[in-house]
Amino acid sequence: MRKEEISNRYRSLQDHIIRELEHIDGFGKFIGDKWQREEGGGGHTQVLKDGTILEKGGVAFSEVYGEVSSAMKQQLQMEGESFFATGVSIVLHPKHPRHPIMHMNVRYFELNSGEYWFGGGIDMTPHYVNHEEAVLFHQSLKDLCDRHHPKFYPEFKPWADNYFYLPHRGETRGIGGIFFDYKNEDNTGLSKENLMNFCTELGELFPVLYKDQVRHKKLSPPSIEEKQWQALRRGRYVEFNLLHDKGTKFGIYSGGRTESILMSMPPQANWEYAFEPVPQSEEYQTLKTLKIIPDWIPSK
Amino acid sequence: MRKEEISNRYRSLQDHIIRELEHIDGFGKFIGDKWQREEGGGGHTQVLKDGTILEKGGVAFSEVYGEVSSAMKQQLQMEGESFFATGVSIVLHPKHPRHPIMHMNVRYFELNSGEYWFGGGIDMTPHYVNHEEAVLFHQSLKDLCDRHHPKFYPEFKPWADNYFYLPHRGETRGIGGIFFDYKNEDNTGLSKENLMNFCTELGELFPVLYKDQVRHKKLSPPSIEEKQWQALRRGRYVEFNLLHDKGTKFGIYSGGRTESILMSMPPQANWEYAFEPVPQSEEYQTLKTLKIIPDWIPSK
Repeated sequence: MRKEEISNRYRSLQDHIIRELEHIDGFGKFIGDKWQREEGGGGHTQVLKDGTILEKGGVAFSEVYGEVSSAMKQQLQMEGESFFATGVSIVLHPKHPRHPIMHMNVRYFELNSGEYWFGGGIDMTPHYVNHEEAVLFHQSLKDLCDRHHPKFYPEFKPWADNYFYLPHRGETRGIGGIFFDYKNEDNTGLSKENLMNFCTELGELFPVLYKDQVRHKKLSPPSIEEKQWQALRRGRYVEFNLLHDKGTKFGIYSGGRTESILMSMPPQANWEYAFEPVPQSEEYQTLKTLKIIPDWIPSK
Repeated sequence: MRKEEISNRYRSLQDHIIRELEHIDGFGKFIGDKWQREEGGGGHTQVLKDGTILEKGGVAFSEVYGEVSSAMKQQLQMEGESFFATGVSIVLHPKHPRHPIMHMNVRYFELNSGEYWFGGGIDMTPHYVNHEEAVLFHQSLKDLCDRHHPKFYPEFKPWADNYFYLPHRGETRGIGGIFFDYKNEDNTGLSKENLMNFCTELGELFPVLYKDQVRHKKLSPPSIEEKQWQALRRGRYVEFNLLHDKGTKFGIYSGGRTESILMSMPPQANWEYAFEPVPQSEEYQTLKTLKIIPDWIPSK
């Protein structure tokens, strides 16, 4: 499978996801922004603002290539002079505090040495954790993983829990999901084509998962307390992305396109010194869950 | 000069600054929060919320000691088994977009080897850069520096410009000020006592500088555009502190007290994808200035 085919698959995936998300939102439209990278390649960042469900959503495709920089060498710890990387990234910030933030990334990386790997994942950050919704989300991810490899979900679920952990808060960013990296034929036994199919299906699952989380809800307009809590949780999202997220930090420090990397930022975020939710409140329960990191699907 | 004396000087400095800032604000009061550090020492973080001028202000004192951790060794690149560190940090986020964000830090560090140094600085982040206010600010800092050492301002001004630079935005956090670190008798020719006096006077200058920036202004209630711009500039403040600020990153990664470190966060910050101010607007001019990094006081 040639790298151009892989790019094209990701490009089509972006189109598909955008159509589906616009359909779910019912009003908001994505506006595209094509950019070029001086050293090789470029991307297409598409952003939706002020929809009915989405306050801000970004779906970005990129295909970049060129010389392996020293920053990349340090991060990748692999040998090679030139690279090729392509993928799709999504972050959705909903208007309503009872709808979750959802994030996805699927990517492919290749070195001129012939070495290649796939990476990615989907994770969810509800402002209020709801047990059934969390189980539904994880079950769908597990079902998809299980169709491709019995070891994927058991490996990728804890990988997400570790990746999306904020050590300085002692809590996870949300209820996790799956995360994986450096996957190729050697370490999975799946052909390149099958790994590509896994990534494509994961991408196609994204709008389905999002719809699952927002469709059946009858919501009242949010209270001031709910909006306040949403803004504080968004503050944590910012903290994770800027302090800990390897992807964001690598992009920023290695001179990636700032606006495309930081499209993940919420439209608005708040901080309050030493905020503590009222004991036993829903906010309190959410925080408690984020400190436990549950197995949403108990093993049989 | 013993380390306990230095702590006491910083403790008194915190009290003095709090009194002065409460006086300037005229309504808001600081609420204190004493904390202990398991490995040794502790601090007193004081935060003001919803004053007349200040929307959120924090003035923190800390005195911590213990074993030199591997994180510290890496950052400091110095030899020693145990350390002692004390200092005062301030960040003020005003309500009105025509008032600036102002930051100060003075600190002292000592190793059991006998090695010691002072560090610190004051810098200002106006949401709207005003040339006269910037010159007044820098002139006051230069006057103080010049009373202590002719080389301080010429060295510390560019140090601040470099320190408070956001490479991923190609702009400085604000109009800078002064920043210094690792200063002791060997590299300044000033005795420990005189360096302590410099830090104390810098701390005492802080409320004077803040008053200079806010007192003579007759302000109308802010427009929606001004508030929006303020929120975006606060977003940049967050980006700097979480992505680049060595002090914040060191504190977070080495297990410092999260709430005290992140008291620097604004009460609210916004992000907007690929925002561009209207050409020739005040917002546009401010951004232009932050990309130039002017010498506010031309050398004669």
